[in-house]
This record gives sequence, structure tokens and C-alpha cells, in this order.
Amino acid sequence: MNFASDNWAGATAEVMAALTRCNDGFAPGYGNDALTRRVTERFSEVFEREVEVWFTATGTASNSIGLAALSRPGGIVFCSADAHIHMDEWGATEFQSGGMKLVTAAADDGKIAPESLAALLAKYPTGNRFGTPVAFSLTNATELGTVYTPDEVAALAGQASAAGLAVHVDGARFGNAVAALGTRPADLTWRAGVDLMSFGGTKNGCWAAEAVIVFSPDRVQDLAARRQRAGHTFSKSRFVAAQFEAYLEADNWLRWAGHANAMADRLRQGLRQHPTARLGWESTANEVFAVLPVDSIAAVRAAGGSLYEWDSLAVDAGPGRQLVRLVTSWATTEANVDAFLAAL
Amino acid sequence: MNFASDNWAGATAEVMAALTRCNDGFAPGYGNDALTRRVTERFSEVFEREVEVWFTATGTASNSIGLAALSRPGGIVFCSADAHIHMDEWGATEFQSGGMKLVTAAADDGKIAPESLAALLAKYPTGNRFGTPVAFSLTNATELGTVYTPDEVAALAGQASAAGLAVHVDGARFGNAVAALGTRPADLTWRAGVDLMSFGGTKNGCWAAEAVIVFSPDRVQDLAARRQRAGHTFSKSRFVAAQFEAYLEADNWLRWAGHANAMADRLRQGLRQHPTARLGWESTANEVFAVLPVDSIAAVRAAGGSLYEWDSLAVDAGPGRQLVRLVTSWATTEANVDAFLAAL
Amino acid sequence: MNFASDNWAGATAEVMAALTRCNDGFAPGYGNDALTRRVTERFSEVFEREVEVWFTATGTASNSIGLAALSRPGGIVFCSADAHIHMDEWGATEFQSGGMKLVTAAADDGKIAPESLAALLAKYPTGNRFGTPVAFSLTNATELGTVYTPDEVAALAGQASAAGLAVHVDGARFGNAVAALGTRPADLTWRAGVDLMSFGGTKNGCWAAEAVIVFSPDRVQDLAARRQRAGHTFSKSRFVAAQFEAYLEADNWLRWAGHANAMADRLRQGLRQHPTARLGWESTANEVFAVLPVDSIAAVRAAGGSLYEWDSLAVDAGPGRQLVRLVTSWATTEANVDAFLAAL
Amino acid sequence: MNFASDNWAGATAEVMAALTRCNDGFAPGYGNDALTRRVTERFSEVFEREVEVWFTATGTASNSIGLAALSRPGGIVFCSADAHIHMDEWGATEFQSGGMKLVTAAADDGKIAPESLAALLAKYPTGNRFGTPVAFSLTNATELGTVYTPDEVAALAGQASAAGLAVHVDGARFGNAVAALGTRPADLTWRAGVDLMSFGGTKNGCWAAEAVIVFSPDRVQDLAARRQRAGHTFSKSRFVAAQFEAYLEADNWLRWAGHANAMADRLRQGLRQHPTARLGWESTANEVFAVLPVDSIAAVRAAGGSLYEWDSLAVDAGPGRQLVRLVTSWATTEANVDAFLAAL
Repeated sequence: MNFASDNWAGATAEVMAALTRCNDGFAPGYGNDALTRRVTERFSEVFEREVEVWFTATGTASNSIGLAALSRPGGIVFCSADAHIHMDEWGATEFQSGGMKLVTAAADDGKIAPESLAALLAKYPTGNRFGTPVAFSLTNATELGTVYTPDEVAALAGQASAAGLAVHVDGARFGNAVAALGTRPADLTWRAGVDLMSFGGTKNGCWAAEAVIVFSPDRVQDLAARRQRAGHTFSKSRFVAAQFEAYLEADNWLRWAGHANAMADRLRQGLRQHPTARLGWESTANEVFAVLPVDSIAAVRAAGGSLYEWDSLAVDAGPGRQLVRLVTSWATTEANVDAFLAAL
Repeated sequence: MNFASDNWAGATAEVMAALTRCNDGFAPGYGNDALTRRVTERFSEVFEREVEVWFTATGTASNSIGLAALSRPGGIVFCSADAHIHMDEWGATEFQSGGMKLVTAAADDGKIAPESLAALLAKYPTGNRFGTPVAFSLTNATELGTVYTPDEVAALAGQASAAGLAVHVDGARFGNAVAALGTRPADLTWRAGVDLMSFGGTKNGCWAAEAVIVFSPDRVQDLAARRQRAGHTFSKSRFVAAQFEAYLEADNWLRWAGHANAMADRLRQGLRQHPTARLGWESTANEVFAVLPVDSIAAVRAAGGSLYEWDSLAVDAGPGRQLVRLVTSWATTEANVDAFLAAL
Repeated sequence: MNFASDNWAGATAEVMAALTRCNDGFAPGYGNDALTRRVTERFSEVFEREVEVWFTATGTASNSIGLAALSRPGGIVFCSADAHIHMDEWGATEFQSGGMKLVTAAADDGKIAPESLAALLAKYPTGNRFGTPVAFSLTNATELGTVYTPDEVAALAGQASAAGLAVHVDGARFGNAVAALGTRPADLTWRAGVDLMSFGGTKNGCWAAEAVIVFSPDRVQDLAARRQRAGHTFSKSRFVAAQFEAYLEADNWLRWAGHANAMADRLRQGLRQHPTARLGWESTANEVFAVLPVDSIAAVRAAGGSLYEWDSLAVDAGPGRQLVRLVTSWATTEANVDAFLAAL
Repeated sequence: MNFASDNWAGATAEVMAALTRCNDGFAPGYGNDALTRRVTERFSEVFEREVEVWFTATGTASNSIGLAALSRPGGIVFCSADAHIHMDEWGATEFQSGGMKLVTAAADDGKIAPESLAALLAKYPTGNRFGTPVAFSLTNATELGTVYTPDEVAALAGQASAAGLAVHVDGARFGNAVAALGTRPADLTWRAGVDLMSFGGTKNGCWAAEAVIVFSPDRVQDLAARRQRAGHTFSKSRFVAAQFEAYLEADNWLRWAGHANAMADRLRQGLRQHPTARLGWESTANEVFAVLPVDSIAAVRAAGGSLYEWDSLAVDAGPGRQLVRLVTSWATTEANVDAFLAAL
């Protein structure tokens, strides 16, 4: 009954097998090995175009180094008020960029509406006296379990791009978004106007497999040097490459993410029908937000279960109740879900 | 015949086994899991005192975040002119610390002499108008394959400490130093006056296992926050913990490092007796510096071997010859060494 | 008819005279001169307690270096959404602090309400996972021409202090606030719980006279070094000291600020009675916000006048009208005001 | 007998007169005033080509912001081991640039020899694994009172430029260099290959008049934004402009610097003939380095004189003697010099 986070799961058998497979003999360090090259090419196939791939240790690293590669003094990044880069990374983007500012738009269900972005762009027009907007960042799947469609991404990216901004996607749960939509990765990114993204494998079956994927190399500056001085250039790069090899092979990543989404669906369905619990809001990917009686939360925890209390201005839980976040993963089983629903 | 670097090897069987072993079920993220706690305690046993352990992704991260935790505006770190933190990390310490300066002492064999440190301390006394010395950093084993003894560390640390400086050790190859000296880890660190260190497992049989070890917690500030915003807080911390578990178990790390050292000894012995090659200087750990005929270098490479050309003001290779660095690892075999010597 | 900003005026005769007076003979550099010491003591008299005084070149420098002296990695500063530090300084605080984040509260009339601060403090409690709140900053007089009373400052400072935050005041127009309230500088600052402030003389009759005033030296770290490396340690410190000497002498600063406020009152009175213009909101200090017909704005400009268009979500100007900011200074005359009102 | 520094003098009568003259009426802030524009054009005349002029508060600000405008992650600036940017600015360049590294060449008399620069360039070739050389910085007149000729600047700049580096001049005492050489400012800068410089007026008769002068605008990035967020954009820009107006008028600056140089010559001549004192080394500009008996130093100080003890590896003062620095300025009189020599 572990629903605290998708990073509580370990690695899939396929990832472990790939790690074992690559652990043979010597290979050049710092990404100059054959496996890293092969996996980079694999990313290009997945995205149906040539891409740059820069492994990092964490999603925070990918986000902050990627955005820093766009940085300018006095620079501004627009994002959602719930964005992981704003709320959960301890100023990583501000730090890596030497002081860029994140300016946020309200986004009740985690998705920035076109009119919210328009309002920000109007407030900070080109040549304004407040700072230089450099990037727009969205998270897909969002921090609130919702998903932007290719059309929605394209609409926002079009606005941002028209204002001269680079478009960044925090894809810590990108697999969940792609699996939920049944879309092509390219359609959800560069074909919709995305310039670079953080591509996360860790939450979806890897140990530590994160990368900055660059679709518009002309937009970014000195990414290799930034990653190096930030301490994110792995010497034994093949151990990341191996994880991604297994991840991307035979659409494993979409199968794993699809499973996590399906478990979340099962959970959502159970909660919708539950007499004392209810959904905080509808979501699509592997994060479920529910309003539960505090007694039920205590009962789940007493039974060894884990979940995460959540705050939201958009939900009034009411007396004796609490909003919680429940996250499923590749490792969540139907039995886990059913046991949780029973324990409520 | 791979002698380019110890990071060309993969992970040991023990490390892979530990990774597999830990990959079971769910565990809290971000270092709150039982295995991370257990390994932290294991470090305290290894060092014979309570220590703080902060995993990071790379040695560069450990060095720069550790030193940044000592940082002050206008701060100065003294180190060797060959120090990895000065020459190989792309300004990581300058960056993570927000602009501290590395001031270097010449160190012909990689080891800073007490009189060199004394000269720096005299040039930058307390209250000087040039900056605030905050730390002295030494590398053990050094970048040139030599090793500081506990007495040598204590002498330098005593000077630095008397001047109010924290003492830092870059221990990317700390295992090689301990194994070469047959000393206790505590004697080479905190008992000799070391306040914090970078403890590296990656070059000695792990995939990516690096940590900042803090002996003097009063010296450092906000290490958790610094690591977090630098993107070095792994969510699935147990994958690092597992590597270190295998590493520290039954003195595996010293056995692996001892093997690497022994292979380097074999190489040194062969080079001393070689008709056309010679040692650049005597070293003790797993890095060997040799002056080779350029034809021999070409022959090694033609045979698929790898090594690294090196520059040093201390060695005049002479015409038709080149100084090279040769690094052995846990994975180097006697046959590798003998084949290399034969290929020269 | 220059109402664009109080920085369009020059220096007062008293300031020029003091500059001339101090320009005699040699004096030690970098603040070690007798005049700088004397003026520092004068500040202590003005504030009725010993204070630290650090001259800087601009208000942006004072704000950002002062706040940086409180900085911690992952640190957060709470301020108003209209705060100069957030909107007008191009990320200076983010930059000087190495990446702290400004988190804003809405403040319709420029003043943060206690409940707004309470909401921020509740969202970021001690030990929260989003960052480390380190300071609360308010501007007095505010960017919108309003003024916090000593009680209002004390209420906010009490909340902030109870949560462990340092309290910072951006006093670019502090003289206008003190003059408007007729209060003692001490009552509006440290007696109300303020730990440090930016004290501005430039907008009120000086050329370039700005200082960080520290009431709680235990709160700040390395201010001297931070100022030095930021390039804000004037070698000929006496030229700033002389300006402040004239400024503080015989309450000149309050007289000049009082005059500016009176001119603003005259302007406000005229606008209240005007047939086609109206006040955007009521203010007290030397900034007046008015809704004017766009034709009137054009007429003022055609007649050589200057003013500043302003955006505010709190004011709906209506068709054919525009919100503007009008700023008076020590140099504004009654004739200037009357001519402006006539030109509308 | 004040020879501690040229920043112990005040401002010239001409500078004070210009300040008074400009203090009339209103003028737009932040450099948009007519006087700032006029002075910018005057700089273009002085340098015989269009230049960008960015006022700052101090030489440290000019140096660090100018170099930061060239910055890249992992970037390296080559300079002399005595360079003010390396020894006296508390890591300002490291800080403003977000972590660039200063790598130094020995320069016994303050001037970097072409072979020293060549050695650095050879150690850090394009594409090296240690960092990205971005700039070469020289100081003229140097920190040791010596002066580079146009040919010497051109030789070094040619080397640097061939290696892709921008060429920067720290011109805190640029007037003294130009006056000593009798050369044209253009010949000593952009015609010799200089891309940007710090142009200092403060030490030579102004209160606070410093500027970054850009000859190669394509080389620098975001200077306006960098200056703004560093708090170096004066609102009442005309007070700096006025100082520079007087400075550049009728070659005042060269007359004042020439006077300082002449006083230094008189001092040097006196010291050469002195029975117990001697010159530390020959210099040309307004800094004189002398080896004095410690008793003489005490006598000078007892008589109210000021000077500065200096350390140099190049000079062995011998027992009972101490190397000192003596600086003359526009305000130094022949009587001052003679009194000093008499007091020895």
C-alpha cells in the first residue's frame, strides 16, 4: 500500500538485466562509450529526429541545467505556481542560472491556461523594464496528475515562441503523459514547439536515469560545460545508458507507465465509488488526489501504507478530512490498490 | 591494455549483487530508507566515529558541494596546482560556492610540502586585504599517484587548522591511499585533523558511488540544502547505498584498491626494467607515470590499448618521447599489464 | 512639470555645499576617513542606537547586498508582489544571494496585510520541503505611495520574527515615510522589529547616497566582504559621507521629504477636484497615482511634462483613460504642480 | 606626505565645478539624460571611434562586470599574478561571472611577458579539458607602476586574439599610462587589439567616475542587464557624467595624470640619490616602490605621512629594511615630495 511516490519503487527486471549486460570489460568514460552513443541514437529514433542527449543524476539537475543553458542576466522563466521547478527544487534553477527568476501563473488543475500565459506575456513584453523573459516551462504529466495534449502544448508553445521564449518541458513523468494520451513523443514535444526537455526514467522503473533532451540546439549555450561544473557528468556513463537502453527497448517505458496509469485508474474508480472518500480532482496520469477522512488515513498508515498529505487552495477538504496524493508506479499491483481501498 | 583511467572499468560482481539484492519492494525516497541509514552507520564504523554521509553523483559534486558548505564571500581555498578541483572540474568549486577562489601551491610530485603551505598562509594571513582563507584541500591518493601518510596529513592539517582553515580531502582514490599505506581510514582523516572529505567509490568498483563525509559538522553549513539545489539528492538513494554496502563489506574496497595498486606495482617494476621506457616519477598508488617512446605509444594504441598523454613541467621527456599516465583498477589483470609491457 | 520620478531632480544646495566642504586635503580610502566615521555616528544618533552603516552606490545594491547577507541556499524572501526588489531590480537579490527566491504576497495598495503574510508563513512553515524562509521585506514608503505606520510594521515584523525570519525594509523613500507619519526613525524600524534596512538619500536630494543600515548585526554575515566583491566599496568614501552629512543635518532630509509630500498632497487635492481626472488610489507619500484621459497625458507631454504610465490590476482606468504615476521631490514647486493641473 | 594611495586625494576644482554646473533642473534618470549622452560621445572622440560607455561605481565593478559580460561556464581569464582583479577585489570577477577562474602568469615588474602568455595559452589550448579560456586581462599602468607601450599591448593582444580570447584592460590608472607614454588613447587600446576596458577617473581627480568602455560590442553580452542587477546603474547618472565631462575636457585628465607622474619622477629621482633608501624597481607611472630603512618609515609616519608596506618575491629588502609603495596624485605637490625625502 505504498502510494507516497513513484520513487519508492526500485528498478524493473529489464533495467537490472541491462545493467548486468553492460558490465563487461572496459569502456571510455564521460559518455564516450559505444553504449552511450547507441542510446543517444535510440533517443533520436524515439523522437523521430536528431536530438542531443545529456544524462544527469536527477530531474532537478535536468531542469535547472537545461533552463540555465537558456539563461541571461535578469532572465525570467514562466511556469505554473505548482511547478516542481518552483516549489520542490530549492531554488535549483535560480542557482544554476546565476539568479534567473521564476514567475508563476495560477493553474488550478496543474495546467496553465492559454489566457494565463497570455497575461504573463502581456505583463512582461519584449523590452519591458522588469526583466528578460527567456523561457516558458510546463510539466507533462503535471504535478497534479493531469496531462497536456499535443494541441494544448502547441497552443502554449506557440504563444511563448511568438514572444521569443524557449519552450521547456519538465518530463519527470513524461512516460505517463505519452502513455495516457497514446500519442507519439514527437507530437507532444518538438512538433508542438518544445525546444528542450527533462526526460525522466527514474520514477518509471530506473534507478537514476535522467537526461536533458535538446530539440533546438541553437537555443542552448554551453550545456556540456554547465553539466560538467555542476558535477553531473557521470564518468561511468554506461550505467545510465544501460538503464535507458532497457527503458526505450520495445516500448518498455510506455508499458510501465501505462501500467502505473492503469493502477491509478483503478484507484480513481474505487475512490469515485467510495462512501467516505472522494477525488480532489480528476486526473489522468499516475497521480491521484483524494479527500479522505483523517481516520482512514490513520488506518492506512497503521496498516503500513504510505501516502502524502497535500495542500491546495482549490480543494476545501472539510472538517475531519484531508487532501492526499496517491502515486502509482510500474511496481504497483492491483492487489495493492484493492488493499488500499479496503483499508480506507 | 586499458590504462586510460580507472573509470573505464565497470562495477564489481559484489556491487552488482548488492544492487540486485536491494531491488526489492518499496523504500522511502531521498535517503530516508533503511539501507541508506544502515550504510551511513557502516561509514561511522569504518571511520571509528560518528560521521555525516551525503551521497552525490560524482567526485566533482562531492568536492564542490563540500567546499561550498564552507564558503564565504571573498573566500579562498588553498590546494595543489595539480589538484583535480583546480584543473579538472571546470570551475565547479568556484560555481557552487558563488565565487570562491582557488589559490595554488606548486607540488612537484603532487604532494604539497609543509613549507609551500606555510608560504601561502603567510601571504594570506588572517585579516589580510586579499580575501578570507577558508579551507585547505589535499588529494589522497594524489593526482600524481603519490600518497600522503597520516603524519604528512597531520602536519599540513595542523598548519591549516592553526590558521583557522577547514581541512578537506579529495578522496576520489582514497581507497588506493589507505590500501597503499595499510593505515586505518580514521588515522588518515579526522585523527590527522581532516574536517570533511570526498569519499569516492566509483573509480574502485562501483558504478556511481560518491559521498561527502563530514567529520566536523560544526564547520559546514546547509549541506542538505546545497546538495538538493545542486540536483544531487538521489530519489532512489538505495541504489547508491547498495553500492557502498558492497564496497565497505568485508573490506572489499581495500582489497579492490590493493589489487589496483599491485597491478600498478607490477607495471612500475616492468617499466623500471624496460630498455626504452622509464618512470616519470615514483608513485605508490594506482597511477603510473612513464616516459615512453612515441613509437611505443603508437604501437600500444594500434593494439587496442589506451593510455593518457600527460604534461608536466617536472619531467623533460626528451625527443621522440612522451610522458603518459597509466591507471590500473580492480579490473586490471596481470595479463593486461604483461601484454602492455610486451607491446611497448 | 516633471513628475516622472524623484530621481530626475539634482542635489540640494546643502548637499553640494557639503561636497565642496569635504573636498579638502587627503583622507584615507575605503571608509577609513574621519568624515565617514562621523556620519556613521550621526546615523546612530538618528536611530537612537548603535547601527552599522554600509554605503553603496544604489538602492538596488543596498537591497540585494543586505538581503544576500541573510542568504542561505534554498532561501526564500517574502515581499509584496509590487516590491521594487521583485519587479525593478533585474534579479539583483537572486543574483547577489546566489539564488534565493522571492515569494510574493498580493498587496493591493502596496501594503502587505498581516493575513497575507500569515498565509505565506503557513505555506512555508519551518522545516517545510519547499525552501528555507530567511527574510521578510517591506518597502516604506511603498512603491504605491502608501505608508506603513510603526504599529503596522511591528505587527508584520512580529509575525515574521516569530517564524524566525529577519525583517528588512527597503527605504528608498524612507524619508517620505518618516515625514508623512511624523514618527521617529527608530519607531518605524528597530523598535518595530526591523533588523536591517536600505536607507536611501538619492531620491531625496542627494546625488548617490545609499546605505545598508544594520540594527541586528548578529543576523548578517560578511557584509563587508559581500559589498567589496560586489564593487560597492567606494574608495573616496567621503563623497558619500558628505552627502549624508548634509542630509541628516538639522533634519534636512525630513524637511526635503516633507516638501515632496506636501507637493504630492497639493497634487492629490487638485486631482480629487478635477473634472476629468481622478486618483487611482489614495496615497500619503510623494507618489501619486491618477487616472487621466489619454488626451490630457498627451497634452502634458506636449507641454514638456513627464509622467509614467502604470499598470495595476486593482484599477480599471476605463476607455480613453490611463493610470499614471506622478512623483514629486524636494525640487518640485507649487508652480510645477499648478501648471500640471492646468495642463490636464 | 600622503603617499598611501591616489584615492586619498579629493576631486579637482574642475570636477567640482562641473558637478555644480550640471546640478540644475530635472533630467531623466538611469543614463537617459543629455549630459550622459554628450559625455558618451566625448569618449568616442577621445578614442577616435564609436565606443559604448557604461558607468559604474568602482573599478572593481568595471572589471568584474566587464569580464562577466564575456563569461562562459568553465571560463578562464588569464592575468598577471599581481593583477588587481586577482589580488584586491575579493573574488569580484569570480562572483559576477558565476564562477570563472583567474589563471595567473608571473610578471616580475607587473608586465606579463609574451612568453608567459604563450605558456598559458599552450597549457590551455582550444578544446582543452581544463576550461574555456575567454579573456586575457592586463593592467595599464600596472599595479607595479610600470607601463605597457602600444607595441607591447599589441603583441600580447595579438597572441590572445589568435587564441580566440577577448582582450581586457584594467585602466584604473589608464591616464597615467597615456600621460607617461605620450601616446593616443586609441593606440594603447583598440588599435592594439583591446576589446574592452575599465576606464578609471576616480584615482585621477574625480570622486567616483568609472566606466566600462566597449570597443568590440559583438564580444560582450547583456552588459546593461548585468550592470543593472549588480546595482551599478546610477539613477542620477549625470553626476558621473559631469565628472567625466570635466575629466576629458581640454585633456585635463592627461594634465592631472602627467602631474602625478612628474611628482613620482621627482620622488624616484630623490630616492635614487638617497644614501639609505633605494628604488625597489624602476617604474614610470605614479606608483613608486622603494626599499626604506624601517626607522625611516617610522619617522615618516611619526611626521603624519602615509605609505603602504608591500610584499614582493622579486625584492629582498634586507635586514632592517622594508619595501614600500608610494603613490602620487594630481594633488601631490613638489613640497610634499621634498618633505618626504627630507623626512627619510
